[in-house]
Amino acid sequence: MHSWVDGQPADSVPLNDRGLAYGDGLFETVAVKGGRPVLLERHLQRLEEGCRRLALAADHHLIRNEIQAYAAALGDGVLKLILTRGDSLRGYGINPGAPVRRVLQGSAPAAYPPGHETVGIRLFPCATRLAEQPLLAGLKHLNRLEQVIARAEWQDAEHAEGLMLDMSGRVIEGVFSNLFLVRDGTLLTADLNRCGVAGVMRAEILARAQALGIPVAVADISLEHLQQADEVFVCNSVYGIWPVRGCAAMSWPVGPLTRKLQGIVRALLDI
Amino acid sequence: MHSWVDGQPADSVPLNDRGLAYGDGLFETVAVKGGRPVLLERHLQRLEEGCRRLALAADHHLIRNEIQAYAAALGDGVLKLILTRGDSLRGYGINPGAPVRRVLQGSAPAAYPPGHETVGIRLFPCATRLAEQPLLAGLKHLNRLEQVIARAEWQDAEHAEGLMLDMSGRVIEGVFSNLFLVRDGTLLTADLNRCGVAGVMRAEILARAQALGIPVAVADISLEHLQQADEVFVCNSVYGIWPVRGCAAMSWPVGPLTRKLQGIVRALLDI
Repeated sequence: MHSWVDGQPADSVPLNDRGLAYGDGLFETVAVKGGRPVLLERHLQRLEEGCRRLALAADHHLIRNEIQAYAAALGDGVLKLILTRGDSLRGYGINPGAPVRRVLQGSAPAAYPPGHETVGIRLFPCATRLAEQPLLAGLKHLNRLEQVIARAEWQDAEHAEGLMLDMSGRVIEGVFSNLFLVRDGTLLTADLNRCGVAGVMRAEILARAQALGIPVAVADISLEHLQQADEVFVCNSVYGIWPVRGCAAMSWPVGPLTRKLQGIVRALLDI
Repeated sequence: MHSWVDGQPADSVPLNDRGLAYGDGLFETVAVKGGRPVLLERHLQRLEEGCRRLALAADHHLIRNEIQAYAAALGDGVLKLILTRGDSLRGYGINPGAPVRRVLQGSAPAAYPPGHETVGIRLFPCATRLAEQPLLAGLKHLNRLEQVIARAEWQDAEHAEGLMLDMSGRVIEGVFSNLFLVRDGTLLTADLNRCGVAGVMRAEILARAQALGIPVAVADISLEHLQQADEVFVCNSVYGIWPVRGCAAMSWPVGPLTRKLQGIVRALLDI
């Protein structure tokens, strides 16, 4: 489907766009099913939070309407929204008069091997560490060189995702996923106040688990915690949940809580 | 002057450009005098180092020729080169077949108040800290949200630059400059192995000072070191050297080594 820039069909952005110059902006990757953007409210909520923290004056009502119109036209697939701080000349200083630029792109539904969801995956243990920057932590911003470098660490098909630690050795997330572990019946995911992307599916899973009365915790996770976990899985808003079977010398079974949450998430993504 | 993309006049980049999507690329800002790119070899050297570290397969011979041709046409002003990892579809994975994209933009000579160079400037003490990421440290890459946030901390004309520390409180650099201090005759600038941009003018000043027999040191700098400095200045490849007269409660005179180096740098930028 043809891309839109500021609501009009377009293929490009001007060279003065601050997204290109500095990665000065945010993005959202949204699953679209039957013309409907899945978990739209959570995507919009994260986007608003990002705009607030980066002082991007976006029209959120307009963005919502555009996403819905674009998704309706796309039907089934993946919608990507990029917001940038519009144009500026040389220098980091912000031109307060420049309107935020809205880019919408559509692509076909993600085509991952079905075994990722059923049998589970292995994580590549990335050497690339996430830098600790509280001002950017949690946001899905356009400064993603760490993820680019980490993703280039493996090419084999044996590893479907990578495991990323922060500079202090805490277990944070995958390269394009959040990570959960289960230990003694508690669902645990990393605190993302120093680094990492606070995924929309992560938020949904935390909320669903709490509603089911499952104990949940958001906390620092060590490699030892990970090793001792009863179950491990990764998630994102496009593929849902993949059980994690192994990473380096560690291994885990696919457990009952992972399967239960997969059922809930599959219903979300398949309706 | 009209911009070039891959050697042709153009105003835009495709929406799939990885510079826009992830800040996946590098840039150089080059002063141009009389059709000549100033400190070209140092700019090319840093760019090559950046390409090596980010695994960007650029044609450096072609880039050199394009910069020279563009500068000759520009005459006097500032040339900006952006290299991106070209196009890709969804996902952080690299498409090894996608050629690196070259963007060249030109603008008028920088117009800073002349007093910045003669009288000196004050630095705004930025609250924004630089995250420590050795994989990216020193590079002039396109992930510059920290600089955007820091530059937005002050709007008044009283502060011409900002002072940035790293997460551990070390003095690193300005928002768009490197920082030097002089103490007991030694010229000192921050070690940039954890964060910061290794500026071309910084490298030139270090080399010139060494050639003159001035003791130089690249080391960690504390706020106490800064406070006790005999002279402080900032530099970049466009404006040269600005003496720093104050930052928060700290103040410094404009010293003789600053004036001596200004003379050398002015000759470079004015020829």
